[in-house]
Amino acid sequence: MKDINKFSNVRTDLAIESREMVREDQKREVPGVEVDVEEIKGMKITRVNIKEEIGQKIMGKPLGNYITFEIPKIREMEKQAQEEVAQEMAKELRDIVQDKITKDDTTLVVGLGNWNITPDALGPKVLSHLMVTRHLLEHIPDFVDEEVTPVCAIAPGVLGLTGIETSEIIRGVVERIKPKLVIAVDALASRRMERLNTTIQITDTGISPGSGVGNERKALNQETLGIPVIAIGIPTVVDATTLANDTIDLMLDAMIAQAPKGKEFYNMLKDINREEKLQLINEILHPYVGNLMVTPKEVDLIMDDISVVVANGLNIALHPGIDLEDVNRYVN
Amino acid sequence: MKDINKFSNVRTDLAIESREMVREDQKREVPGVEVDVEEIKGMKITRVNIKEEIGQKIMGKPLGNYITFEIPKIREMEKQAQEEVAQEMAKELRDIVQDKITKDDTTLVVGLGNWNITPDALGPKVLSHLMVTRHLLEHIPDFVDEEVTPVCAIAPGVLGLTGIETSEIIRGVVERIKPKLVIAVDALASRRMERLNTTIQITDTGISPGSGVGNERKALNQETLGIPVIAIGIPTVVDATTLANDTIDLMLDAMIAQAPKGKEFYNMLKDINREEKLQLINEILHPYVGNLMVTPKEVDLIMDDISVVVANGLNIALHPGIDLEDVNRYVN
Amino acid sequence: MKDINKFSNVRTDLAIESREMVREDQKREVPGVEVDVEEIKGMKITRVNIKEEIGQKIMGKPLGNYITFEIPKIREMEKQAQEEVAQEMAKELRDIVQDKITKDDTTLVVGLGNWNITPDALGPKVLSHLMVTRHLLEHIPDFVDEEVTPVCAIAPGVLGLTGIETSEIIRGVVERIKPKLVIAVDALASRRMERLNTTIQITDTGISPGSGVGNERKALNQETLGIPVIAIGIPTVVDATTLANDTIDLMLDAMIAQAPKGKEFYNMLKDINREEKLQLINEILHPYVGNLMVTPKEVDLIMDDISVVVANGLNIALHPGIDLEDVNRYVN
Amino acid sequence: MKDINKFSNVRTDLAIESREMVREDQKREVPGVEVDVEEIKGMKITRVNIKEEIGQKIMGKPLGNYITFEIPKIREMEKQAQEEVAQEMAKELRDIVQDKITKDDTTLVVGLGNWNITPDALGPKVLSHLMVTRHLLEHIPDFVDEEVTPVCAIAPGVLGLTGIETSEIIRGVVERIKPKLVIAVDALASRRMERLNTTIQITDTGISPGSGVGNERKALNQETLGIPVIAIGIPTVVDATTLANDTIDLMLDAMIAQAPKGKEFYNMLKDINREEKLQLINEILHPYVGNLMVTPKEVDLIMDDISVVVANGLNIALHPGIDLEDVNRYVN
Repeated sequence: MKDINKFSNVRTDLAIESREMVREDQKREVPGVEVDVEEIKGMKITRVNIKEEIGQKIMGKPLGNYITFEIPKIREMEKQAQEEVAQEMAKELRDIVQDKITKDDTTLVVGLGNWNITPDALGPKVLSHLMVTRHLLEHIPDFVDEEVTPVCAIAPGVLGLTGIETSEIIRGVVERIKPKLVIAVDALASRRMERLNTTIQITDTGISPGSGVGNERKALNQETLGIPVIAIGIPTVVDATTLANDTIDLMLDAMIAQAPKGKEFYNMLKDINREEKLQLINEILHPYVGNLMVTPKEVDLIMDDISVVVANGLNIALHPGIDLEDVNRYVN
Repeated sequence: MKDINKFSNVRTDLAIESREMVREDQKREVPGVEVDVEEIKGMKITRVNIKEEIGQKIMGKPLGNYITFEIPKIREMEKQAQEEVAQEMAKELRDIVQDKITKDDTTLVVGLGNWNITPDALGPKVLSHLMVTRHLLEHIPDFVDEEVTPVCAIAPGVLGLTGIETSEIIRGVVERIKPKLVIAVDALASRRMERLNTTIQITDTGISPGSGVGNERKALNQETLGIPVIAIGIPTVVDATTLANDTIDLMLDAMIAQAPKGKEFYNMLKDINREEKLQLINEILHPYVGNLMVTPKEVDLIMDDISVVVANGLNIALHPGIDLEDVNRYVN
Repeated sequence: MKDINKFSNVRTDLAIESREMVREDQKREVPGVEVDVEEIKGMKITRVNIKEEIGQKIMGKPLGNYITFEIPKIREMEKQAQEEVAQEMAKELRDIVQDKITKDDTTLVVGLGNWNITPDALGPKVLSHLMVTRHLLEHIPDFVDEEVTPVCAIAPGVLGLTGIETSEIIRGVVERIKPKLVIAVDALASRRMERLNTTIQITDTGISPGSGVGNERKALNQETLGIPVIAIGIPTVVDATTLANDTIDLMLDAMIAQAPKGKEFYNMLKDINREEKLQLINEILHPYVGNLMVTPKEVDLIMDDISVVVANGLNIALHPGIDLEDVNRYVN
Repeated sequence: MKDINKFSNVRTDLAIESREMVREDQKREVPGVEVDVEEIKGMKITRVNIKEEIGQKIMGKPLGNYITFEIPKIREMEKQAQEEVAQEMAKELRDIVQDKITKDDTTLVVGLGNWNITPDALGPKVLSHLMVTRHLLEHIPDFVDEEVTPVCAIAPGVLGLTGIETSEIIRGVVERIKPKLVIAVDALASRRMERLNTTIQITDTGISPGSGVGNERKALNQETLGIPVIAIGIPTVVDATTLANDTIDLMLDAMIAQAPKGKEFYNMLKDINREEKLQLINEILHPYVGNLMVTPKEVDLIMDDISVVVANGLNIALHPGIDLEDVNRYVN
């Protein structure tokens, strides 16, 4: 989870939010970007492919694929429906993974985030439901199903807990154990309250914190690790600034609807540049809420459910032929 | 923790906030209310005594004493400074308690709240640091220090977990074990972000949820339990509506400061009734944030620290002569 | 969980173990006791009915039914197989429950044990997966399925945490909310290592700690509560004395097998009275291991699994017509 | 924590236990080994220095220093007394550390063990109370006290959770961040019940699991990491075999005391080779208890206390001039 209070006004971890912002602003599809939308079984799957430099520049995101699942009902879903989500997730993951690894190649799954902060603990929590198999294949291969591929996992913690950049730990481990693929799981911040714990983004571009100079050493991607990096992210907090801003927008919309047209106030409201406003709110609020986060009350239970869905998506995708009944024999 | 999103616009659990609101509105001290303020060792102690019916009516709170500790630095305090807070808290508690129980009278400490929701778990967490002694005095009195008085404790859970009104559980237990005093510890919601985990309120009026009809059976006070009830409360969440409202106020203040005087907009802004506004925000936001809460990121650690402070305030107050070094021998 | 180190040499919470001991000693079925054994789906179900006084006296257990599930594989079971166990458990529970409550009668489920000691936390953990419905039927009956009956729940803690006898808390609550049935869930100690977390006992005799004088006030049964009490127990710890004793028995068996017949030593070994030996071990070991417990290494994970099985057994039994897919909508 | 059930009959992680066994067997001090014993403030400090090859061979442990604190009362200690233990531990640590690092050299503290198994979680728990400072000195040096040295920390998990040998993770991290010293904290198994959570061993020889072939890659020591490795270990479990064996020894002692001298049985008992017996017990018990562990009932609370003591020992030793009051400002 990046520092959720330092978002610039166009900063979002989700490609579909970047696209939304661009489209709102420019009233047209982003050039150099291909988009495909599918709706099945109560999910909306959006595949954004940033294909050209111009798209990359406008979106503020690297070239590559961004697949987003929006599942508004995931929080009330029964187990069976949650398994369907895992199955769909696995399908998309396999499409991405299949040309990157073969059956004997090792995958390293990285559970990013701080296990002491519930909504940031998504990564470590996913690991606890993951089929970790590399050591079994090495030491007791005869007891392992044939479809199982070597998967290992690490939860590196965060800078504040370890004193070490997370990327340094990952690089050290990658250099020693030489996996062919890294999959990093992380909690994200969202710009919209309704996305909280309902949206899953899978991308083959890895994790690139900010686009500024000097941050490159913190990135987890093909350039820095030398192997493909897939990132799976779920928005689990909204920052307080976003909440404040959304409220004001709702208020303004209500006031504009009521204000007598032609009057000074109407014009003033209409002219308020919403991005400037967000910057203003940021400045005003930061001293007060710099350390606050907005989460659902039942955040612990939600994180439990969602981490199982993501872990099972990975389990099915990484071990083709294994089904969810088999998974229990390998987990823990 | 009451449902933090159903607060009416003047609803607050803290007497000092009620008083503030009245004074802001009416520009004078609340009639029928005595107030005393003391500042020591980085704490501000405000003693509000609602003495007359008129005060009760205006404040929306029962006759009685409300002692509030404001300790802005409690979150960064070293252990020793936190012990000073516990000592001061114990002094005020003893003043309230001393004419209610004698050395052999049993006190029942009630830890209210939902242990599954971190910021609501204050009550149960305090119990885990409390000197529970009633059974020791009954079964092995010779091994107990002379100053120790009989204290027992219960964490009744919340309606959603038990299917039983908390007050019913407490009444059942009180009727069977017949304590002479109940002390209830609860997490509160605050109207101000800066109060989060920095304010402690002690009152001898018990807990009276709402003032509406029919709620009386949920109250924990002298009327319903037949014995004195002291309540200790700490604001541990801000509801999302409050956050939104505070932001808008900060925005309006900034805009008023900039608006050219005499103009329509200035007048409009000046005329906005802030209580009406809060109601409007409530209506607009409820569908979106009904289930959200705003907490500090390190809420787990903060709750740990604060529950030790409150427990030790109780330990020192209830067992005069016991010091904090002795406490360890009795806890757990 | 009773104090596991104070067991007398014939003390066990499980009726099938009492029966075993009697049969080993007397080489015949216990008089006044009816026994029925069934094996299905990898479970062994033993129904012991203590029908006459003589059986009660010999077994050291009250008249009534004791149904025991032995499920050696429960720890490796897949979710689906665990659901089958819950279904079978529900069948037996319904047989017991059906003449005790009608659809509108309230059941109080009591989760006994200390939530701070993992293997003793079975009761509280079961509650967290239980359909608690009494408040829903009272406040929002239209949103509740028709088959749902009023269930409420309480985890009263243990004497060391509350300073109050658990039975006093339960009586207080029962007197106020007047349920028609109490179901108490508790962790037990076993005399055999292989029973750890693999055996479930259901009895309609409630909980009667010891048979000594003065303990009656601690009992939870028809006599003390005035309503039927069903107890569900699972052995989750072996005490250190049991482990030591079982080892010595295994050793003796090995030595007897090897000792040249006719020799003094063989006779000596053969003559060792195993109950005397247990008493001797108790005396020798108590100072060293009084505070130790023996658990599986992965005790946390096992308790999670088993508490779901027990909770679902209750959910299905108490709400006829509700299936496991529906349960998720009510839990939490 | 090594697999506690595969201990050979002379295997122990504690140098004082190796020495004890040798002395019991050979009735003399171990050659090539220097021993110094000090008793202060309720602690017994034993400094074993294995100086010559012959000592190494007999003890089954590498050349180097092994300092053991035996603190029988640590479990009942008040906070202040626990701080005294931390201070004494820090003194010994500083003696070892001082010629290995200078003020600007980075120390990497490794918290070994499985965070899901309470008695094995010592290492990860110690980290949560450790002053982690490396990132502060790098990013905000002006806000850091002058005495603070760069410390970073990692909890690598265990093979079963990660699929990666712990030593591989540590090597990867060491190669990237190039610390000058590694301090590894680990839970140990003990051969004696009375050592549980009362003994702390500090050694400058690192961690060398077993002495067999092929294990060298799992070792954490100067040879494998290229920098000095200090290991801090505390016995937190007794394996079930040890418990069984100790019981039988106690039994035999009692029987020998009673057996009429000169008889066959007496001779037989006297002749039982206790090491052979342990091997026999191992064989007999393994199928039954291979997965069991013996711990104190209040193991969670004990681990909390002890991990604070160890962490503070490290905090004081690594940042000379920092006192415990300062520590709070840096932890978490």
